[in-house]
Amino acid sequence: MVKAAICGGSGYAGAEVLRILLLHPGVEVVAVTSEKSAGKRVTDLFPHLHPYAHLVFGPLNKIEDLAEKAELFFMALPHAASQEAVDFFFGKGKKVIDLSADFRLSDAAVYEAWYKTPHRYQETLKQAVYGLPELHRERIKKSRLVANPGCYPTGAILGLYPAIKEGIIDNGTIIIDSKSGTSGAGRKAETAFSYCEVNEGFKAYGIAVHRHTPEIEQELSAMAGKKLTVNFTPHLVAMDRGIFSTIYGKLAGNADTGEVIGLYRKTYDGEPFVNVLEEGVFPNSKNVRGSNYCEIGIKVNKRTGTLIIVTAIDNLVKGASGQAVQNMNIMMGFKETTALEPVALFP
Amino acid sequence: MVKAAICGGSGYAGAEVLRILLLHPGVEVVAVTSEKSAGKRVTDLFPHLHPYAHLVFGPLNKIEDLAEKAELFFMALPHAASQEAVDFFFGKGKKVIDLSADFRLSDAAVYEAWYKTPHRYQETLKQAVYGLPELHRERIKKSRLVANPGCYPTGAILGLYPAIKEGIIDNGTIIIDSKSGTSGAGRKAETAFSYCEVNEGFKAYGIAVHRHTPEIEQELSAMAGKKLTVNFTPHLVAMDRGIFSTIYGKLAGNADTGEVIGLYRKTYDGEPFVNVLEEGVFPNSKNVRGSNYCEIGIKVNKRTGTLIIVTAIDNLVKGASGQAVQNMNIMMGFKETTALEPVALFP
Amino acid sequence: MVKAAICGGSGYAGAEVLRILLLHPGVEVVAVTSEKSAGKRVTDLFPHLHPYAHLVFGPLNKIEDLAEKAELFFMALPHAASQEAVDFFFGKGKKVIDLSADFRLSDAAVYEAWYKTPHRYQETLKQAVYGLPELHRERIKKSRLVANPGCYPTGAILGLYPAIKEGIIDNGTIIIDSKSGTSGAGRKAETAFSYCEVNEGFKAYGIAVHRHTPEIEQELSAMAGKKLTVNFTPHLVAMDRGIFSTIYGKLAGNADTGEVIGLYRKTYDGEPFVNVLEEGVFPNSKNVRGSNYCEIGIKVNKRTGTLIIVTAIDNLVKGASGQAVQNMNIMMGFKETTALEPVALFP
Amino acid sequence: MVKAAICGGSGYAGAEVLRILLLHPGVEVVAVTSEKSAGKRVTDLFPHLHPYAHLVFGPLNKIEDLAEKAELFFMALPHAASQEAVDFFFGKGKKVIDLSADFRLSDAAVYEAWYKTPHRYQETLKQAVYGLPELHRERIKKSRLVANPGCYPTGAILGLYPAIKEGIIDNGTIIIDSKSGTSGAGRKAETAFSYCEVNEGFKAYGIAVHRHTPEIEQELSAMAGKKLTVNFTPHLVAMDRGIFSTIYGKLAGNADTGEVIGLYRKTYDGEPFVNVLEEGVFPNSKNVRGSNYCEIGIKVNKRTGTLIIVTAIDNLVKGASGQAVQNMNIMMGFKETTALEPVALFP
Repeated sequence: MVKAAICGGSGYAGAEVLRILLLHPGVEVVAVTSEKSAGKRVTDLFPHLHPYAHLVFGPLNKIEDLAEKAELFFMALPHAASQEAVDFFFGKGKKVIDLSADFRLSDAAVYEAWYKTPHRYQETLKQAVYGLPELHRERIKKSRLVANPGCYPTGAILGLYPAIKEGIIDNGTIIIDSKSGTSGAGRKAETAFSYCEVNEGFKAYGIAVHRHTPEIEQELSAMAGKKLTVNFTPHLVAMDRGIFSTIYGKLAGNADTGEVIGLYRKTYDGEPFVNVLEEGVFPNSKNVRGSNYCEIGIKVNKRTGTLIIVTAIDNLVKGASGQAVQNMNIMMGFKETTALEPVALFP
Repeated sequence: MVKAAICGGSGYAGAEVLRILLLHPGVEVVAVTSEKSAGKRVTDLFPHLHPYAHLVFGPLNKIEDLAEKAELFFMALPHAASQEAVDFFFGKGKKVIDLSADFRLSDAAVYEAWYKTPHRYQETLKQAVYGLPELHRERIKKSRLVANPGCYPTGAILGLYPAIKEGIIDNGTIIIDSKSGTSGAGRKAETAFSYCEVNEGFKAYGIAVHRHTPEIEQELSAMAGKKLTVNFTPHLVAMDRGIFSTIYGKLAGNADTGEVIGLYRKTYDGEPFVNVLEEGVFPNSKNVRGSNYCEIGIKVNKRTGTLIIVTAIDNLVKGASGQAVQNMNIMMGFKETTALEPVALFP
Repeated sequence: MVKAAICGGSGYAGAEVLRILLLHPGVEVVAVTSEKSAGKRVTDLFPHLHPYAHLVFGPLNKIEDLAEKAELFFMALPHAASQEAVDFFFGKGKKVIDLSADFRLSDAAVYEAWYKTPHRYQETLKQAVYGLPELHRERIKKSRLVANPGCYPTGAILGLYPAIKEGIIDNGTIIIDSKSGTSGAGRKAETAFSYCEVNEGFKAYGIAVHRHTPEIEQELSAMAGKKLTVNFTPHLVAMDRGIFSTIYGKLAGNADTGEVIGLYRKTYDGEPFVNVLEEGVFPNSKNVRGSNYCEIGIKVNKRTGTLIIVTAIDNLVKGASGQAVQNMNIMMGFKETTALEPVALFP
Repeated sequence: MVKAAICGGSGYAGAEVLRILLLHPGVEVVAVTSEKSAGKRVTDLFPHLHPYAHLVFGPLNKIEDLAEKAELFFMALPHAASQEAVDFFFGKGKKVIDLSADFRLSDAAVYEAWYKTPHRYQETLKQAVYGLPELHRERIKKSRLVANPGCYPTGAILGLYPAIKEGIIDNGTIIIDSKSGTSGAGRKAETAFSYCEVNEGFKAYGIAVHRHTPEIEQELSAMAGKKLTVNFTPHLVAMDRGIFSTIYGKLAGNADTGEVIGLYRKTYDGEPFVNVLEEGVFPNSKNVRGSNYCEIGIKVNKRTGTLIIVTAIDNLVKGASGQAVQNMNIMMGFKETTALEPVALFP
C-alpha cells in the first residue's frame, strides 16, 4: 500500500483527491493538512466523505513529522504558498504532485510576471514535469515532481494539441473562449461567489489577463516549436462543475471536418481518457461531470475557413484531482485508470 | 460472471443500473431493451455511458430470446406495463428485480384502487418481496422476485421505521413532507418538466393522492401491527437528484433528541447505507447525491411535543437503481456494497 | 413628492426597495445608508440599479442630518441594530417602516427570549403595528411605525388566517413546512451560502428553533383568541427567490376542498395581492417571482381528515420590500398597489 | 388607447409582450391567438398573467375578424408560418411587428438558403424595416412593418456596431461566441430541453450553421459597406434568460481600452437602453434579466492586438418582446421607454 498525504485538504481539490482515492485499492491516505481547519474532522467540512470519519486535519507546520508518514504528497495549497512545501518534500526524496501553479511554468521569469511573486526554488523547478499525461507520459513516469496542470489549460491544450502538432491551423489566430463551473473558484466565503450572485447569471472575468494564459502558451509553443500567444477568455457559469472550451483558429489548409476528426483520433489513439466524438456530435459538460474524461468535438466552418474545436472536462477531476491521481498511477506503476473508472454522473 | 439484462433501459433508472454496474466485477450486462429506442446504441441516448459503446437497445418483444440470455432481469418498465414481463421471466425461473410499482403492493385491490388497472398476476405477486434491505434482508436473500421500493417510500420508511417499531410516536399523526429532484419524473418530453418551467420554481403536486402513499402505509402498518394512514405531500424541486423528507409525528412519550438518536442508531447498527447523524447535524441531499446512502437527522421539538425526522437519499440510487443493485447483491450472494462504494459527488 | 430614505441599503432588501420605488411616481429616494459600503455608489454594489447612478451610500452615524432630509424611513438594518435608529426617527416625528424583526413582537420578553438581546425601546414598541395589510390595514393607515413582517410569517399567516378565524382546524395540530430561496439569507460572504454549497442541495435548518416561530404564533394566537404553538421548519432551496409553505392542520369539521376555498375567497375578497386558486390548481413560487402577490392553494385530505394549505410568495417582495412599499402606500395615502403592479417575471 | 392583438401568444415571447404591456397606459390587448391552445384562458397557460384572467386564446383562422379588432399586431408565430399572416394584416393597412425571422432578411434568396423554404411575399418583404432602434430608428418611425431582430443578432450587432462603423477592427476576423439561456428555445415539450438534460450542463449547438448568422452578417455588412462573414457559435446555458456574447476582432489600429470605450459611448450617446460600462467593469446577464437594457463591456488585449467586446441582454426582452414594445412605442409615437422602465430583477 502506498502511503499518501494531502497538504491543503480543506478545499474542493483536496476533497476530490480523497473521494477518488476511496476507490483505489493500492493507496492509503495517512494524513491530511489544513491550517485553518486543523483539529477538525474531514467529515466536519465534508459530510459526504464519511468513510474518512477517523481522519482529522493536521497543521502543515509539523512538516518534518509529515514527511515521515508518507511517500507521496498531493499538494493542494494556494499558489505561492506551495513552493516551499513542495521543495521540502522533494528534497526529502518524496514523490510530489503539486496541484498549485507553482511548478507549472518552466520559466521563472514568466511565473513572476503573472503571479507577482518570485520563484524561490528554481533548482527544484527544473525537475518538475508538466503533468498532462497525453503529452508527457514518459517523463511523468520517471519524475518525482509533477506539476498538475490548471483546469482551463487541460481543456485548451488537449483541444489544440493535434491541430498544432499537425500544422493545420494558423498559430497566430488562436482564440480560446472557456466557460467554467463555479467550483473552479474554490471553496470560499466571498459575496461574489454566493449563490444569489452566481445563479442565473453569466459573466466573463480576467479577460486578457488570466493567469492560465502563460501556461497554455508554454505548452502550445513547445508543440509549435516557436513562441505563440493566444486570446483566452474565461467565463463563470452557474453550475457546479465543468469546463467547456470553444476554440477557434484559421485553417492553414482546407481540411474538412471528417479529416480533422481522423487526425484527432489518430493522435489520441489508445488514450484512456480522451473521447474524440464522431462528426455532428459535440461535447456537453454534463457528459463528463464527476469523471476523468475529456470530450472533444470538431467542426470546420467552410464559409470562414475556420477550425472550431470544442472540449469538455470536469474541472475538479480531469482538470485537477482526477488528473493528479492519473499522474500518481503513472508515477507509482499502477494501471493508469485505477480509481478513475467511474463515468459521469448523469443527470 | 452473472449475466444480467435490463428491460426498459432508455430511462434514467435503466441508465443508472448501467452506470453502477460498470463498477461491478461479477456482473455482465448482456442485453438492454427499449421499445421506442430499439436499434439505437446506448451511447446515442446516453453519451456518458461510452464504455457500453457496443450495446444496442433491442425490442422487448423478442422476450423468449431474451430469457435465454440472462439469469437476472432488472425491469425498468412503466407501471402496469411491467406486470406481464415480470411474470414471464419469473415463470421461466429467472431472478427478477422490478423497479416499477407493479409488485410492491401485496394487496391487489389496493394496487387497483391507486393505479386504476387490475393486477393480472396475483399468484406471482404473492412471491414478491418488498426490496428494502434494511427491513427485509433475509426474505430478499431467498427470493427470486424483488419489488424494488419507490423513491419516496424509501426515504419515508427508513425515516419512520425505528420510531414506529419502538412505539415512540402517535401513529395517527404522521405527516411526510417530501421534496424531490426532477429526475424523479423520468426522462420525458413534457412542457411541465422543461428547464424553464422547473428552474427557479417550487411546487407541490399530487397532494393527498400520490401513488406512493399506499406503499408507505403498507410498510408502516406492518411495523405498527395495525393499519395506519399518513399525510404525504410530494414537491418538485429544481435540482437533478435527491429526495428530502421532513417527517412529523406527535411524541408518544417524552424522549429527547439524544435518546431518539440513540434508538435510531441501535436500529440501524451495522447497516452499510444508513447514516444516523449526530445531534445538531442534519441531512443535505447534496451529501448523498450519486451515492446509495441515506442520511437521517433527528430533532425533538419540546415546545410542541413533536418528533421531526429528516432524511435524504438520491432518488435514482438508493431510491431506485442503487437499491436494485443492492438487492441483486443480496440475492446473488455478492458482498452487499459491491459497486455501491462511491460516496456522493460533492459539489 | 414624498422624500424617503433607506437605512441599511446594501443588502437585498434595501436594493429591492430601490428597485420597486423606480416605478413609484410619488416618492423620491433622497438618501441611502450603509456602514460598510459608505462612500460607494449604489451602482458599485448593484449595477442593475443604474437609474440611481447619482446615489452614494452614506454612513448612518450622521443620523441627525439624515432625519432632516426625509419624512419616511425604510429601515433595513440587522436585527438588534435597528432598535435605536428606529426609535430615533420615530422620536423625531418621522414615519418609519422597519424591515428588521425588532418591532414585530409586541411582548418584549418574547423578543428577548428568541433574539437573545433585550428590547431597549419598549415605549416605542407599543406604538408599532404589525404590517400585514390583509390583517391590520386600518391600524397601519393611522400608524407612524410599522413593523414589516418576516418573510416566512407572511406566507404562513396569510395561509392560516381564514382557517383559524373560521375555526375549521384544530389549532393544536398546526405544522408549517416552509421552503425558501437563498436570497432569504441576505447578501453575505459565507461559505455555507456559496454557489457550490447550495446548488443541487436541499436541507432543513433551524428546526424547531427558528426566530420566525414566535412571530407566527403571535399573529395566529391573536386570531384564535388564545395562545397557540406551531411546528415550523424552514428549508433552504437552491433558487434565488420564493417562499413556499406547505401547512397542515387537522380539520375540526368535515368541510371539503371546495367549501374551504369558498371560505378563503370570502376572507380575501377585494385583497389586491392575494390569489386564492381554484380547486385542483396549486401555487408555484415561480408564478409570483418578482411580484407582490401571494398564491394560496387548498386541499382537504378526506382519508386523514387534514386540511393542507399551500402558499407561495416572493420572499424579497411580498415577504419584505414589496410589502414595505405596500405599507408605505397605505400610510401615505397612495393607491395601495402603486409601484407594485408588475406581475411575476416568468420564466 | 391603441388596440393591439398578439398572434401566437402561447409561447414565451407572446407571454412577455402581455407581461410588459400591463405597464403600458396607452395600449389595450384585445385579442390573443394560439392554434393549439385555442379555447384556453391565458391564465391556464400562464398563471402569472392573472390580470388577463378574462382573455381567452382564439384560433388564428378567424383572421378576417381579428383584423377588425386591432390596429397593431404583434406576430409571434413560428418561422415560415408567419409570412402569410403578416402579409395579410399588412395588406389590410395594419401596423405589424413580426417577432419571427420571416421579414428580417431583405434578400429572399438568403432567406430561402438558410430557412429552407421560399419567401412567398417578396413585395411585402421590401416594406419591412429591421427593427433595431439603435440603428434604424427613423425608418422604424415611418414604417408599418417592423421585423423584430433575433435574440442573438441583437446582442451581437449592438456589440459590433461602433467598432465596424468607426473601422477599428479587421472585418475579416470577427468571432461571436454567444451563450443563451434556455428560454431562447421556446416553450416546448422536448427531452433535450427538459430540466435534467439542461441543468448542470453546457454545450454548443448549431456551430457554423445557426440561422441567426445571415441576419448578423446582413446588418454588419451594411455598416461596413461591403459583405462580410462571421463565425457565430451559440451555446445553451442552464439559466432561464439572458444572452451573453463574447466578440473578438483583430484591431485595425492600436487603440487602447479607454479610447474604444470613448468611441462606444459617443456612438450610443442618448440611447435609453444601451449601457457602455466603464473600464474594468464587464456585463453580467443577471444585471439585465427582465429588463430591456443591453450592457456592453470593452477590453483591448495588447498582447495579441485583439478587441474583445462583451454584451449582455435578456433574450426575451431586448432580444424579443421588449424590443417589440420599444418598436411599437416608436411606431405609435409613445415615449420610447414606456412600459420598459423596470430594471433587472436581481437577484
